[in-house]
Amino acid sequence: MAKLGLRRYLGVVEIAGSNPVAPILIKKEKMNHSEPKEIGIGLIGLGTVGSGVVKTLQARASSIARETGVKLVLRRVCVRSLNKKRAVKVPKNILTARPETVIDDPQVEILIELAGGIHPAKEWIEKAFALKKHVVTANKALLAEKGKSVYLAARVHRRRLGFEASVCGGIPILRAIREGLASDNVTHFLGIVNGTCNYILTEMSQKGLSFSKSLSEAQQKGYAEANPALDVDGVDSAHKLAVLSRLAFQAEVDFKKIYVEGIRRITAADIVYAKELGYVIKLLVIGKKKEKGLELRVHPTLLPLDHPLSSVRGVYNAVYVHGDHTGDLLFYGRGAGMMPTASAVMSDVIEIAQDMTKGLDAMRSSWGNEPSAMKILPIGDLVSKYYLRFQVKDKPGVLGSIAKILGDNKISILSVHQKDSLGSRSVPVVILTYEAKESDIRRALQKIDSSPDTQEKTQLIRVEALI
Amino acid sequence: MAKLGLRRYLGVVEIAGSNPVAPILIKKEKMNHSEPKEIGIGLIGLGTVGSGVVKTLQARASSIARETGVKLVLRRVCVRSLNKKRAVKVPKNILTARPETVIDDPQVEILIELAGGIHPAKEWIEKAFALKKHVVTANKALLAEKGKSVYLAARVHRRRLGFEASVCGGIPILRAIREGLASDNVTHFLGIVNGTCNYILTEMSQKGLSFSKSLSEAQQKGYAEANPALDVDGVDSAHKLAVLSRLAFQAEVDFKKIYVEGIRRITAADIVYAKELGYVIKLLVIGKKKEKGLELRVHPTLLPLDHPLSSVRGVYNAVYVHGDHTGDLLFYGRGAGMMPTASAVMSDVIEIAQDMTKGLDAMRSSWGNEPSAMKILPIGDLVSKYYLRFQVKDKPGVLGSIAKILGDNKISILSVHQKDSLGSRSVPVVILTYEAKESDIRRALQKIDSSPDTQEKTQLIRVEALI
Repeated sequence: MAKLGLRRYLGVVEIAGSNPVAPILIKKEKMNHSEPKEIGIGLIGLGTVGSGVVKTLQARASSIARETGVKLVLRRVCVRSLNKKRAVKVPKNILTARPETVIDDPQVEILIELAGGIHPAKEWIEKAFALKKHVVTANKALLAEKGKSVYLAARVHRRRLGFEASVCGGIPILRAIREGLASDNVTHFLGIVNGTCNYILTEMSQKGLSFSKSLSEAQQKGYAEANPALDVDGVDSAHKLAVLSRLAFQAEVDFKKIYVEGIRRITAADIVYAKELGYVIKLLVIGKKKEKGLELRVHPTLLPLDHPLSSVRGVYNAVYVHGDHTGDLLFYGRGAGMMPTASAVMSDVIEIAQDMTKGLDAMRSSWGNEPSAMKILPIGDLVSKYYLRFQVKDKPGVLGSIAKILGDNKISILSVHQKDSLGSRSVPVVILTYEAKESDIRRALQKIDSSPDTQEKTQLIRVEALI
Repeated sequence: MAKLGLRRYLGVVEIAGSNPVAPILIKKEKMNHSEPKEIGIGLIGLGTVGSGVVKTLQARASSIARETGVKLVLRRVCVRSLNKKRAVKVPKNILTARPETVIDDPQVEILIELAGGIHPAKEWIEKAFALKKHVVTANKALLAEKGKSVYLAARVHRRRLGFEASVCGGIPILRAIREGLASDNVTHFLGIVNGTCNYILTEMSQKGLSFSKSLSEAQQKGYAEANPALDVDGVDSAHKLAVLSRLAFQAEVDFKKIYVEGIRRITAADIVYAKELGYVIKLLVIGKKKEKGLELRVHPTLLPLDHPLSSVRGVYNAVYVHGDHTGDLLFYGRGAGMMPTASAVMSDVIEIAQDMTKGLDAMRSSWGNEPSAMKILPIGDLVSKYYLRFQVKDKPGVLGSIAKILGDNKISILSVHQKDSLGSRSVPVVILTYEAKESDIRRALQKIDSSPDTQEKTQLIRVEALI
């Protein structure tokens, strides 16, 4: 009897040295949560990431329960078509084609939204909050464009909104900024957050391919969509920038004011010239807190070869963050893909479920208190160094007149490189500038581009100095 | 009247589209926690990091309250000497030289322990738990060597133990592993976690300095202690490895079984030869989950030049983690220093304070459920590639006899490089091996080192293949 009884005790706390507190016996069941409460999960969207989530829930429910103390049970899954063949087996009785069946199910306590798109995802999520469910989503478009309404609904109903999977897939970057840098002021960040663009630029750089060749290669390999606009035009990156800025700067961001420029105009020649000058071209998201407001921009950028982001190749993502206390931080990993993104979704689900189990069934301010609306500075106010590639007639005096126009507009030249015309009727001239104001640059280029000596629109790529 | 009343409402939730729930009016004060409860902080240890914490609490209390909803108030600070001049101003009435004054103060709800050392820090922390306080510490030595007792005390008293600052200062690596990879299985990780050693090796590599020259330079610059043993002998790295392994592998780790080797035996010549072969030498912590147990080791390692960790220079830290779902992740940043480490301490303080404010005044299992004791594999069982530098008499037949002994011990040679003797009476011979078992290597070296042709103990450095 006594022996059996002892088994119910975990043990005695050893108290060594000066500790005056007597040893304490604690009942095992009090401490182990050995029978965790089941938490019901509902899922809308059984595409790549959704299938990864189902796989994880099916294969790891018991190890998750053991390691984190929460028992996750998949209650409902909404798919577009009930008859499609799938990568994962889902029991027929929990499959539905009606999103409401998932949202309304009282057994669903956490809704995972992986359908994407703004409507009706917004309505589903806000309804789920109203029904006192927590929500986990990877929907960056929704958060970027209608985030204010969604965040508010979570706040009003005191429910949690997890969105780690919306930026950089497997990299726990949002958690790092929100929690790891909680006492810090983020001054700026730079990120490579779109794997498709980074893959295309890497291939262009390594194989000397044109943009369109590299794009079709990416499409063949499944790294780019049939309609690649969202990626190559920078919109997906801008969505992620909006989500990052909100957390990093505690700012309410007007998505439409973010400056966005994609990679379609980058040529193989630009990449070669940049390399000769010691740079690599990357599509970056850039967020900087300035005295007068926020600089938020997405555009191809010349980065020095020894910048930590320059060696991020292929479909990898990375974000460099500077906190005024913490200094430089770099986070690197897979930004997309079934299991990395599913892993990010699951990290939110587990965190929320843990808090639910422990009785914290209230909204935890995952994004601090209400962020304040912050001014986004217009691109014309930007002060940056520039890479300019002019295509001009190969005749005397042309370079002089370009230099004069730049000078007239307060733009100082760092270096000039006249390239081989390669038999074409125009010759490329590459100019690196010192720091100049973008509005001055644009005024100068307008003048230069309207000259009869200029054979095509001048290429402008901003240069980001070393950290 | 009506107008005034309206101001007290935050607003109306816009419910668009299919959402059937009626608009809801919520009182502003219910949502904003506009008067956050004060949380009392006690601090033991006002050295570099402690001063950073006090600075942050003094300068940022109000911005932290605004952004995170918690109001942190420094109640007590324990210092070794009351009369010393300090970098930060602390009001006289909260300063004490008696740790008990901090721990016993009923107004102290979170104890920050930054005194370091195993005793009496262990007793202070365990007493604080017994008095129902939460604890935040940067004490890796304590967690590595007596962690079991400390973690148990937290568990028994249902209090939180924050220790983000114990590994890699400003890099939120523990949070990333614990939360970001919650549903993932970490298969292995490699880390540069000691800034002093990385600084010394970087200087040796860049300036061709000897170990002792580079060490004294590091001491002059304040990057190495007067007694550098804890750093250069690998013990500090091993402490961090123990903390990382517990989280990454959910393993109860016996610190004494970790294989530890420092950097004192690395010569400038080894660094040059490694570079010629395409490698850089780094002091790594390595954790790998194998079928039969854990490989946990700290030693200088040859890393291929294009490995992401190879470009981590100077006092920077980085940890590369592989999760079977998430894939490769890399975290990079400042591993030490006043403000980066203070920022990590504050991230734990804020997380705990937020949970307290929200009513979750119970222990949250910050490290999963009780980790299981896992076998640590002996170093003799390791299978690795090796860099071996022999110092032998410059006479015919010596190389042949080395090759024979290696072959007799099942060690295959990848390449042999005979170096210039530079006028010395012995000539260096560098051999890279294919994968071999460490016990075989050691048997072979014992035989080779006892030969009269061998002029000094053979240098052995393990080689880590590309990710």
